[in-house]
Amino acid sequence: MPRYAEISAMKSLKEVINPTTIIRSSKLDEAYGIEIILASETFQHTGSFKFRAAYNLASSVANEHIIAASSGNFGQALAYACRLLGKKCTVVMPETASRVKIEGVAANGGIVELVDTKSISRAERVNQLCNEHPEAYKASAYDDLHVIDGNMSLGEELSAIAFDHILVPLGGGGLISGILKGLCNAGHMGEVIGAEPLLANDAARSLREGKLIRNDQEPPTIADGARTISLGNYNWEIIRNGLGRIIEASDESIKKATKELFDLANLKSEPTGALGLAALSENKSEFKGKTVCVIVSGGNVDPLLYGELIR
Amino acid sequence: MPRYAEISAMKSLKEVINPTTIIRSSKLDEAYGIEIILASETFQHTGSFKFRAAYNLASSVANEHIIAASSGNFGQALAYACRLLGKKCTVVMPETASRVKIEGVAANGGIVELVDTKSISRAERVNQLCNEHPEAYKASAYDDLHVIDGNMSLGEELSAIAFDHILVPLGGGGLISGILKGLCNAGHMGEVIGAEPLLANDAARSLREGKLIRNDQEPPTIADGARTISLGNYNWEIIRNGLGRIIEASDESIKKATKELFDLANLKSEPTGALGLAALSENKSEFKGKTVCVIVSGGNVDPLLYGELIR
Repeated sequence: MPRYAEISAMKSLKEVINPTTIIRSSKLDEAYGIEIILASETFQHTGSFKFRAAYNLASSVANEHIIAASSGNFGQALAYACRLLGKKCTVVMPETASRVKIEGVAANGGIVELVDTKSISRAERVNQLCNEHPEAYKASAYDDLHVIDGNMSLGEELSAIAFDHILVPLGGGGLISGILKGLCNAGHMGEVIGAEPLLANDAARSLREGKLIRNDQEPPTIADGARTISLGNYNWEIIRNGLGRIIEASDESIKKATKELFDLANLKSEPTGALGLAALSENKSEFKGKTVCVIVSGGNVDPLLYGELIR
Repeated sequence: MPRYAEISAMKSLKEVINPTTIIRSSKLDEAYGIEIILASETFQHTGSFKFRAAYNLASSVANEHIIAASSGNFGQALAYACRLLGKKCTVVMPETASRVKIEGVAANGGIVELVDTKSISRAERVNQLCNEHPEAYKASAYDDLHVIDGNMSLGEELSAIAFDHILVPLGGGGLISGILKGLCNAGHMGEVIGAEPLLANDAARSLREGKLIRNDQEPPTIADGARTISLGNYNWEIIRNGLGRIIEASDESIKKATKELFDLANLKSEPTGALGLAALSENKSEFKGKTVCVIVSGGNVDPLLYGELIR
């Protein structure tokens, strides 16, 4: 495990990332009647899997300035990765992003650009900034091969574990694309299932209709990491070819799953991180007696909101 | 990793326990100016290190019925260990024990005996019960060689990690005795430091005066796992010979450390689990530039209290 001060620009992704944390809880298993393996990215650098993507991207491109839109976790991760690599980054965030995530970007030297997403989309503001800074690299939090390859490292790690199904939080599709690629490369036969908020179910609708469907505006789900307009193009290609199905979770289930992770597994998760367990709770009976890996994608949540969720 | 259903009476402690979870956080390191290695037992079976002690004890003694006093975590752990081993257990708990801990004992088939510690001590009630059940084994949560040897397994695990100091929550002395033995056996040169609530500082006073000192009644610290009357006799022998010093942490520091673990490391800890970080916060300057291992001993805390602590 490297001392943080020793992480240098030339380290590879695998040298820098924290391996995912495997958590088992008999209480959770018994409550569900399912053998549940939690793969928690809440202890990853900057508190979510996004660091895998961000570090891989920032260390792969030659540009010294990176501009991205993010509801928060990718922004924090990118700011930290750029700081480690001595690069500059600008992160466009919605005004509604959680405060801890906004502060996380700023604390790592990232420039925060808050936008009112009702008057201008994050994508438009990113485009404006990229016109002002033509030397910068425009990074998508999910629709970028460097991002997908960074997340693939988690799929590779999980390929060492035996499970029948794996539930993966789904927003823009960056994580699940990486998981699909990583498990597929390793020849793992577990079924990959997307876990998407019902209130932001563009991916489920896309899969049902066989074409990429977009939301009109950012959906108001509590799972703030999944408030994306649509899947990315690269992600859609991987998902339409490799993903069998998506389970849609209500916001009520997402809240309940966040509390269950606290009560039954001692795990602090953000609502988006609890999407996998929420999806499992919507379809418990199908998975009885199976071994299910549930990815908890991140743990960054405002204390006040969290206090309400666990009450 | 064994399927829970497969854990049988004949498994050794090392086959059954979850290895401790190592957590690193650059935010925490930067806030303290110290390289901090969190060794979290919050994901141990039943949510605290006590399972190491309880399983070792319950699997080592021949008796089919075990009676113990516990503020909660040892009780939960013992109930779960006895359930795995097909044994019976009775746990005497103070009425003021946290509700999740009481429920944790009952959920695992343990018999809960609540006592008002102002009218009868837990120890007295245990003695009454043992007189009624002479065939039972009377287990101390800390003053028992099986308990100390069970906790030694954590010291052995941590001996593989390089650190200058290790901070260990201190109540009855069961954990720190095991850590001292485990690290000493492995020849680890890191300094072991006890972290004790200032409001329950009988061990610190004992070490200063060179004799075992007792509290008149259970001290009212928020760290409910450290509300012990005194160190155990076995623990005192190990501590007086092997422990250099104890840092006393105020309840204010314990509360703040619990919130810091939430904010900076995404880690849910109970107040007693945050004792090590609280002790570090009382003496930050001394440890600047050092590598310090901080044991987070348990994560079981009532949601309402926790919601207040993280606010």
